[in-house]
Amino acid sequence: MPVLNLKSGFADSDDLDTLMAGIGKRARAAGRAMALAPAQTKDLALRAIAEQIRVSAPAILRENARDVSAAQAAGQTKAIIDRLTLDESRVAAIAEAVEKVAGLPDPVGRQLAAFERPNGLLIERISVPLGVVGVIFESRPNVTADAGALCLKAGNAAILRAGSDSHRTATAIAAAMSEGLARAGLPADAIQLVPTRDRAAVGLMLTGLGGCVDVIVPRGGRSLVERVQAEAKVPVFAHLDGICHVYVAEGADLGMARTILLNSKMRRTGICGAAETLLVDAAVAKTHLKPLVEALLEAGCAVRGDAETQGVDPRVTPADEADWRTEYLDAIISAKVVDGIDAAISHIEANGSHHTDAIITDDTEAAARFLNEVDSAIVTHNASTQFADGGEFGFGAEIGIATGRMHARGPVGVEQLTTFKYRVHGSGQTRP
Amino acid sequence: MPVLNLKSGFADSDDLDTLMAGIGKRARAAGRAMALAPAQTKDLALRAIAEQIRVSAPAILRENARDVSAAQAAGQTKAIIDRLTLDESRVAAIAEAVEKVAGLPDPVGRQLAAFERPNGLLIERISVPLGVVGVIFESRPNVTADAGALCLKAGNAAILRAGSDSHRTATAIAAAMSEGLARAGLPADAIQLVPTRDRAAVGLMLTGLGGCVDVIVPRGGRSLVERVQAEAKVPVFAHLDGICHVYVAEGADLGMARTILLNSKMRRTGICGAAETLLVDAAVAKTHLKPLVEALLEAGCAVRGDAETQGVDPRVTPADEADWRTEYLDAIISAKVVDGIDAAISHIEANGSHHTDAIITDDTEAAARFLNEVDSAIVTHNASTQFADGGEFGFGAEIGIATGRMHARGPVGVEQLTTFKYRVHGSGQTRP
Repeated sequence: MPVLNLKSGFADSDDLDTLMAGIGKRARAAGRAMALAPAQTKDLALRAIAEQIRVSAPAILRENARDVSAAQAAGQTKAIIDRLTLDESRVAAIAEAVEKVAGLPDPVGRQLAAFERPNGLLIERISVPLGVVGVIFESRPNVTADAGALCLKAGNAAILRAGSDSHRTATAIAAAMSEGLARAGLPADAIQLVPTRDRAAVGLMLTGLGGCVDVIVPRGGRSLVERVQAEAKVPVFAHLDGICHVYVAEGADLGMARTILLNSKMRRTGICGAAETLLVDAAVAKTHLKPLVEALLEAGCAVRGDAETQGVDPRVTPADEADWRTEYLDAIISAKVVDGIDAAISHIEANGSHHTDAIITDDTEAAARFLNEVDSAIVTHNASTQFADGGEFGFGAEIGIATGRMHARGPVGVEQLTTFKYRVHGSGQTRP
Repeated sequence: MPVLNLKSGFADSDDLDTLMAGIGKRARAAGRAMALAPAQTKDLALRAIAEQIRVSAPAILRENARDVSAAQAAGQTKAIIDRLTLDESRVAAIAEAVEKVAGLPDPVGRQLAAFERPNGLLIERISVPLGVVGVIFESRPNVTADAGALCLKAGNAAILRAGSDSHRTATAIAAAMSEGLARAGLPADAIQLVPTRDRAAVGLMLTGLGGCVDVIVPRGGRSLVERVQAEAKVPVFAHLDGICHVYVAEGADLGMARTILLNSKMRRTGICGAAETLLVDAAVAKTHLKPLVEALLEAGCAVRGDAETQGVDPRVTPADEADWRTEYLDAIISAKVVDGIDAAISHIEANGSHHTDAIITDDTEAAARFLNEVDSAIVTHNASTQFADGGEFGFGAEIGIATGRMHARGPVGVEQLTTFKYRVHGSGQTRP
């Protein structure tokens, strides 16, 4: 048996291999039990987990305080400390979020399609769990509960890998979850937290632990997602960039354009759905460009523009080629005038990241074209770009936002944590 | 411009890189046009392609004769020569298959879901093409037309890579397809055949050609699929093994069991849906085992069995551990007695390949359990395992059979060559 040393990691990589292989095998076995668990048992477990998180709040906060001190001592940034820090209300919110997942409809066992064949075979397409979901996250300890709860609801087993900074907090939350699972008679291994900070554990998860991991969900910054996408040998649900556009087209109401633009850019600047580029159609540039730019500047947003945009306000600085492909995640926007909807769509296709793009116009035909032709996971008409969220989509919660083309796109809720199988009902049919 | 030398491949790998990058870029551009093509235009193109294949039959057969001679001279196996050889009726069948794809419903633009949110946003989930599909195949030249037609119907661009043996035939078929596309006003680049036999081209496709390939479909033997799964940096739709089981359970009608078993094993032994293992429940072993084994032996199938199976006929040879995990693709079956449905399911989960597994029984409760608990892409009750085919499922045709858990499972028809996007219809909504 490997000897765990949580503080220094594993001296011996064989021990880590053994540890991770064991986690994988237990997850696979637990996943099989979870796939067959009735909806009410899963919901019972979720409610028991929520209760246990509330009961364990003092322990969770104590461990969190240790994580925060260590992060401060290590000189971590204020942003990281903020994401890491829990208080009583945040712990209560974590428990409440888990309870909310219990209230969602069961995504497993739905009949997605059914057809009878001329030979009398009745074929059903039925939703089934994905299997084992590996979640790799950084400093937000609430991901332990959020991701674990969504995986559980969809009948999956989860292997959670917390960042170093949040490891103690995540361990305390995971203990509460195992407790809740056991109380509902489900395998405690259905939600396992990797019990080491050794970064090599991430590499092993990305190989799929010998066929025991079906999908990886990275939750964190760009460098994490890049590493996961480059190294993973199993499918990944993720987005790398959110270079989102607001296109103010011909027929846009100026008031609505201003409101939506400010919300898309400034509601929160650090999220993937925040707008990074404003495109104003030449047809409305004369009336709309100046007030939109001024509204941004007044809201505290720096504007980098093309020549025409620079012309409307001296505070606009020049945009260079790189700006059109930059995800600022900050109070900065790039802005340019485009000559018609084709130019807007071409700009978005050439520079965007296929996350969320919005058109503002009262011209329904132009809106329909934009929604049809822009090849992004989410395209919006007369609505903010900041709706890419499981809660906003009515999915209850999401494990992440995906911009890949396969399987999961946009907010990844419990439904997309399932796949399907075909059930074929015969009466002795053979194939000629 | 790189100088093509189809016989010897590229001396200079820079030239190959340039060639393949160009193919990728043209495919991406063509894919954008295809995604927006109306259903009737795509169907017009498919019918024009079918017609052009018929018109080009003499040229296709001439090139095919050259491929066949070269393969014979190279000492290829009879099986490969068989797969490679076309005649007039096979060319006619290829054209007809393309025409049939034109008759399928358009898989693009379907509303998969729609929901209104409390803030008034109307969110639609709409099917859209995958983008660019890379198809890597070996000696069957008809894959050029089949795969190309399915990709076209689903609004994708296709990059086809033929095996060396079928290269001349594939080139002639691809020329007919480009002609048909152009005649319908669609980009000829929507179906491109890689114009070199250089094997390094496959490696480049597997990297995704700089983001210009969205999914790879390998069509060929195990070594091809293994290489593709190991090296691909993009999603793969494939199956590696088809270790399919027939479980004759308590309550099985002997006559039905015999018919389904023989069909599952012997209809065609070389396909992925062929049964490789017979499981007979202990409850019916006394009455069913001997007649089932004899029926197999009389049909020319070798039987490798456990002790009990060996006991019913001296021609049964002993099965060893490896037999339970072997895909014979031949007239050989492994057979054993299992003690109840749990043992049967455990055996299948431990040894199967999650392709197709069948239960034979009149006990509907046991059948429901089997269909629910066996974690395979296709599970059948009282029906042969050899139905894993787009045609048999009513999908019209399929580009391959997938056993992965994501996105595509079972027969991959035009519907699974699409993904989706969200269209969000607002009236000025911002996020609080």
